[in-house]
Amino acid sequence: MKKGREMMEENRETMEDKTSEKFGVRTDLAVEVKDMYVEKEKPDKEEVPGVKVKEDTYHDVKVSQIEISKTGEKTLNKKSGSYVTIFADGVKKQDTKMQTNAAKVLADQVKKIMEKNEIKAGSKGLIVGLGNWNVTPDALGPLTLDKVVVTNHLFELNYETVADGYRPIAAISPGVMGVTGMETSDIILSIIQKFDPSFVIVIDALASRSIERINETIQITDTGIHPGSGVGNKRKELSHESLGVPVIAIGVPTVVDAVTIASDTLDYLLKHMGREWKEKDTPRSALLPENMPIRHENLSNEDLPDKEKRSTFLGLVGNLSEQEKRSLLEEVLSTTGRNLIVTPKEIDGFMTDMAHLVAQGINAALHDNINVEADAHYTR
Amino acid sequence: MKKGREMMEENRETMEDKTSEKFGVRTDLAVEVKDMYVEKEKPDKEEVPGVKVKEDTYHDVKVSQIEISKTGEKTLNKKSGSYVTIFADGVKKQDTKMQTNAAKVLADQVKKIMEKNEIKAGSKGLIVGLGNWNVTPDALGPLTLDKVVVTNHLFELNYETVADGYRPIAAISPGVMGVTGMETSDIILSIIQKFDPSFVIVIDALASRSIERINETIQITDTGIHPGSGVGNKRKELSHESLGVPVIAIGVPTVVDAVTIASDTLDYLLKHMGREWKEKDTPRSALLPENMPIRHENLSNEDLPDKEKRSTFLGLVGNLSEQEKRSLLEEVLSTTGRNLIVTPKEIDGFMTDMAHLVAQGINAALHDNINVEADAHYTR
Amino acid sequence: MKKGREMMEENRETMEDKTSEKFGVRTDLAVEVKDMYVEKEKPDKEEVPGVKVKEDTYHDVKVSQIEISKTGEKTLNKKSGSYVTIFADGVKKQDTKMQTNAAKVLADQVKKIMEKNEIKAGSKGLIVGLGNWNVTPDALGPLTLDKVVVTNHLFELNYETVADGYRPIAAISPGVMGVTGMETSDIILSIIQKFDPSFVIVIDALASRSIERINETIQITDTGIHPGSGVGNKRKELSHESLGVPVIAIGVPTVVDAVTIASDTLDYLLKHMGREWKEKDTPRSALLPENMPIRHENLSNEDLPDKEKRSTFLGLVGNLSEQEKRSLLEEVLSTTGRNLIVTPKEIDGFMTDMAHLVAQGINAALHDNINVEADAHYTR
Amino acid sequence: MKKGREMMEENRETMEDKTSEKFGVRTDLAVEVKDMYVEKEKPDKEEVPGVKVKEDTYHDVKVSQIEISKTGEKTLNKKSGSYVTIFADGVKKQDTKMQTNAAKVLADQVKKIMEKNEIKAGSKGLIVGLGNWNVTPDALGPLTLDKVVVTNHLFELNYETVADGYRPIAAISPGVMGVTGMETSDIILSIIQKFDPSFVIVIDALASRSIERINETIQITDTGIHPGSGVGNKRKELSHESLGVPVIAIGVPTVVDAVTIASDTLDYLLKHMGREWKEKDTPRSALLPENMPIRHENLSNEDLPDKEKRSTFLGLVGNLSEQEKRSLLEEVLSTTGRNLIVTPKEIDGFMTDMAHLVAQGINAALHDNINVEADAHYTR
Repeated sequence: MKKGREMMEENRETMEDKTSEKFGVRTDLAVEVKDMYVEKEKPDKEEVPGVKVKEDTYHDVKVSQIEISKTGEKTLNKKSGSYVTIFADGVKKQDTKMQTNAAKVLADQVKKIMEKNEIKAGSKGLIVGLGNWNVTPDALGPLTLDKVVVTNHLFELNYETVADGYRPIAAISPGVMGVTGMETSDIILSIIQKFDPSFVIVIDALASRSIERINETIQITDTGIHPGSGVGNKRKELSHESLGVPVIAIGVPTVVDAVTIASDTLDYLLKHMGREWKEKDTPRSALLPENMPIRHENLSNEDLPDKEKRSTFLGLVGNLSEQEKRSLLEEVLSTTGRNLIVTPKEIDGFMTDMAHLVAQGINAALHDNINVEADAHYTR
Repeated sequence: MKKGREMMEENRETMEDKTSEKFGVRTDLAVEVKDMYVEKEKPDKEEVPGVKVKEDTYHDVKVSQIEISKTGEKTLNKKSGSYVTIFADGVKKQDTKMQTNAAKVLADQVKKIMEKNEIKAGSKGLIVGLGNWNVTPDALGPLTLDKVVVTNHLFELNYETVADGYRPIAAISPGVMGVTGMETSDIILSIIQKFDPSFVIVIDALASRSIERINETIQITDTGIHPGSGVGNKRKELSHESLGVPVIAIGVPTVVDAVTIASDTLDYLLKHMGREWKEKDTPRSALLPENMPIRHENLSNEDLPDKEKRSTFLGLVGNLSEQEKRSLLEEVLSTTGRNLIVTPKEIDGFMTDMAHLVAQGINAALHDNINVEADAHYTR
Repeated sequence: MKKGREMMEENRETMEDKTSEKFGVRTDLAVEVKDMYVEKEKPDKEEVPGVKVKEDTYHDVKVSQIEISKTGEKTLNKKSGSYVTIFADGVKKQDTKMQTNAAKVLADQVKKIMEKNEIKAGSKGLIVGLGNWNVTPDALGPLTLDKVVVTNHLFELNYETVADGYRPIAAISPGVMGVTGMETSDIILSIIQKFDPSFVIVIDALASRSIERINETIQITDTGIHPGSGVGNKRKELSHESLGVPVIAIGVPTVVDAVTIASDTLDYLLKHMGREWKEKDTPRSALLPENMPIRHENLSNEDLPDKEKRSTFLGLVGNLSEQEKRSLLEEVLSTTGRNLIVTPKEIDGFMTDMAHLVAQGINAALHDNINVEADAHYTR
Repeated sequence: MKKGREMMEENRETMEDKTSEKFGVRTDLAVEVKDMYVEKEKPDKEEVPGVKVKEDTYHDVKVSQIEISKTGEKTLNKKSGSYVTIFADGVKKQDTKMQTNAAKVLADQVKKIMEKNEIKAGSKGLIVGLGNWNVTPDALGPLTLDKVVVTNHLFELNYETVADGYRPIAAISPGVMGVTGMETSDIILSIIQKFDPSFVIVIDALASRSIERINETIQITDTGIHPGSGVGNKRKELSHESLGVPVIAIGVPTVVDAVTIASDTLDYLLKHMGREWKEKDTPRSALLPENMPIRHENLSNEDLPDKEKRSTFLGLVGNLSEQEKRSLLEEVLSTTGRNLIVTPKEIDGFMTDMAHLVAQGINAALHDNINVEADAHYTR
């Protein structure tokens, strides 16, 4: 029989693997939105019926909003609801002005999605911070909750002293299964039954499906979220259907796997070569010194070379579909220790600033009396 | 009307005050035990009926066990049950050998109290880590939980892989009301209803009622504990009666208030002067150089001078009862900012080592296959 | 022979004791200022020649400035120079507006003392953060340095890109002897010889000589500071004389010992009883319900009862001088483990906010282009 | 003109870029060893003159030792000296038994390299922990120093109490230029001049040149190390030549860039396809269900398909040399934000355990009286 210690350690590893699955699953939010994008970027295709896509820029922050109706849900096999993506690269760039702007946009978008879900002014809310506080790139939930304005106990203990412009808010970081030994959704469900909030906001770190999206986007949806792996039927999702009250999920991609990095790199490679091919006889290139590498800032699908050239550059791999390419890379990297789930090395600073930004946005969305700019001290 | 920010800040202060109340209340455990001590130290008094006091030393660690029966409960107006105090000064002294010994004794005592409460081998347990992880001296619960071996999910997910000698254990750090906005006992109760454990172990930092006990003792009881202030009727205690399953509370005094420091100092002062009076013509003293201060390692009640001398030394204050003296000091120090609740400045290192020790003890008590010495790595 | 482990552990303890000595010594700054206060509070005494005392309130923040000339140095046996105390209780009260004001006042006072020491605009400075980063109440230096704007490398690496309004600033946290094994002053001196700054700013946590001053005051002086114990002749002070450039020390009391707590409490006790004696027949007292304790917000020396009453209340102890009382208490508490050096239990939050405040003040004092209010993000 | 804040933020970014350069340079250690490997793996080539390669396994831990003589230095254009690589995957696998074994092997190897460098028993040493404590994957140096036994002050303060079997050791974490504003090598040099040690041990996190090596290997060399980028001529290396005393560098790869991940993946891809091609008609494959992906645990250079098949699989890219492939990928990923430097998401736990392991090894190597297994408490 195995000795206990070995058993425990094996199980720890098992949990680790589960965690990576979990990250795999939690990316769904992004994937769904991404699929919409793919459609959008091919203008030759028809608009998808039941799907409204809108892009805007507020305070210099790009926002993409996708609404899927019940019709769209059937067509796309994606859950109906709102999917919002805020492009908040101010954190990566350590630009505090851009961070403040992104917090304002986040506040506005959360308010909008709350209105759409008919959450009443002054109604009681519960904020749930998912993730493992011992794993920096998974700690967005707990870190944000440290900076969120919690007021429910003030309403209960000394109601008369609470100023206008605040609503009762409670907050909980339930931890992860490897730490508590319990299903995270079970913990949340039992607290919700007792606390009986009018709505729930869930914050979580996500796995990114592209190099470029990591540490740059904030995603909001009212279609629900799975705390941890949704593989089995044991783990219940957190959604309006399962909880009986609106659930708004806010997620930020903080990790990416080696498959995605390799897959994205192969894409860039083909586009880069395609662009170079196109440009090689143009005056701009001719003016450059022979040995200076050409850098292409914004590669797009239009830079993708034709089938034959793709084969010349990358052989059989050059003509695989996105899905085939990822499957192949997964097969290649599946050996233990190769398909690393990684995070940028600057993750500590990033998490601090992003938790600050998300808390600022949530505080301003929930309490009329809190303003992103004037009340930065709450989230310090 | 008050501006929101002011309101919030006032409320934060209010919460702070509540916290000190909380610490005040959570000391009960120690007080009850201490009262027993007082009895014990006066051998002229009769034994209290319904109270069994036992002192022992295992592995060089002093342990005091007090059993109060239903009879004793009435006599003393103290809840019946077991009160155990382990003197674990190895942490303060940074002596790792002494720490290991104290962990072994803790494991034995927790096992004993579990047996007394008829907790079956292999039965499912929940460990609750009370306290605020953002306040170092209040973080014993969360810090210990970081080092506790959690196994319940392994039993649920892959039962066949769990080795013999382990039982299913889950763990939760519910936070404090100022952080979650919810009653801590409500959070725990709802999780217990869902998880349905056979027993509960609660870990918490306590307020000390003496300078000497701080960071030195570990207290265990099966009589229950209040998470936070028990002043109002709102906060439910965590006990066998309220939860329906045995509750074992493990507490360590980590803070002390200025009243206690001043009160203890006045006691030492009287005993010190009493001893000096007695010794002043003895050879030992005569051998000392004139100006060398005399240090008395172990002052006891026998050193207390008589009433008249107490009056000479400390006037009216010298003849106040313990309770009168504390009331007077509370009155004097009650002005905001004077009755500080303080913790030794080395608290960071102390909490790390004590959490390690408590987790070692609990792990070995709960799982037959874990041994304090061989499995130190679990709690590293 | 002792086994190595024992030896190491004993030595660790020895270091601990050294640390408390260190705290004892580092309080000098406060003591000197305090002595001045005592003089000031006795208006019957003549003004001390060579000492200028000034109290002011800027932005609702009380500031006390003491200038000791060479004449005063002889009279008082205190080093000549400036001693400034800022009363910054906004941190303790978690009032962010008051904190911002205190940071502004700190910036102004540091600027003034820099001007007095003829430190030129644009000249190169070194900021030294003393203290042990593993001991929260001793970590003011390292914590502040995390938030200070460091620019020297920018001037060296790409001079042309540095905007006007900044000066070259370097920063170092040298650690403590128990961590590095080296004299802290030696580390600093060798770096200064290499870096050759025009001035040095030293930040350190201090031991408080009164309950009321802890976590409330910021002290500034240009008379130098000792990094660690100054008992032997080994540890060199950091001062204009020893380094050849102006040294500005900024200190905040964060710890207090049990002797001080007990001593202050005995003082309050006498004043409290004195006041009560005086007031006992006044209408105000008569209107209060019998059993309601009387709280005296602001006790002063005028409340001290006469010699006879002091004897009635506190016996022999009631008529000891300040110095005699402290010596007696030190004798009583000197047994290991009783004269605790303690810190308020909320120290974690306090250190974060105070480091923020001090860094804000220093940044604004050093760089014309940085403003306490607009540039809070630097110190987040 | 640029506003100061923008300037500061740009400069922060510049520093970030410098950091990545730094990581790029610090990998040299690994690269040199790797080059040796490549030679070794091609047995058809002759042995390189002046290079001794030895592989061994102690305590189940694989160790590779490479000695380059002055002759080898010329042939290879690599600095002469010892290069040792310890394969310590016990940390990644959270296997404490394997970690203890790796610590023992590290202790032995450090002792050997100390003997080779004629470092005398009992002689005085300085341990330098390079890296940024605010960036988890760069914090190996500071984290290890927290657990190293520092004794120099004990020898200076109370020589007679130090037990046999210890030597005087001091330790310093100088920080990084972005934090101190000073050249790290300048700080170290000035301290060395003052402290005058007989030898220096430098600990640092490295950039990995392969996915598989990250968080798995410990590298030791006596050929010196650069603290930060060695691009310009400003930053001096730390070596026997520059410091006048032996320098032993201990490094652990903790980060990897996207170019390496993509490059390694392309290698695996070719080998994977080559293996599959070879195996496709073998019985083993035939027994597998059609749609079950084949996983190849240990791909080696022998699996690499021939030139023609490489072209079929990966086009032009399939036949690039290692250097050409990396250059191409660097060109493609060079656009800001794409060539991420990343670290495994479990980095927090990894750093804690690796710092523990390295400190255990160093303590046992330096002090005869410390034993990896018995004295684990020093590094807890």
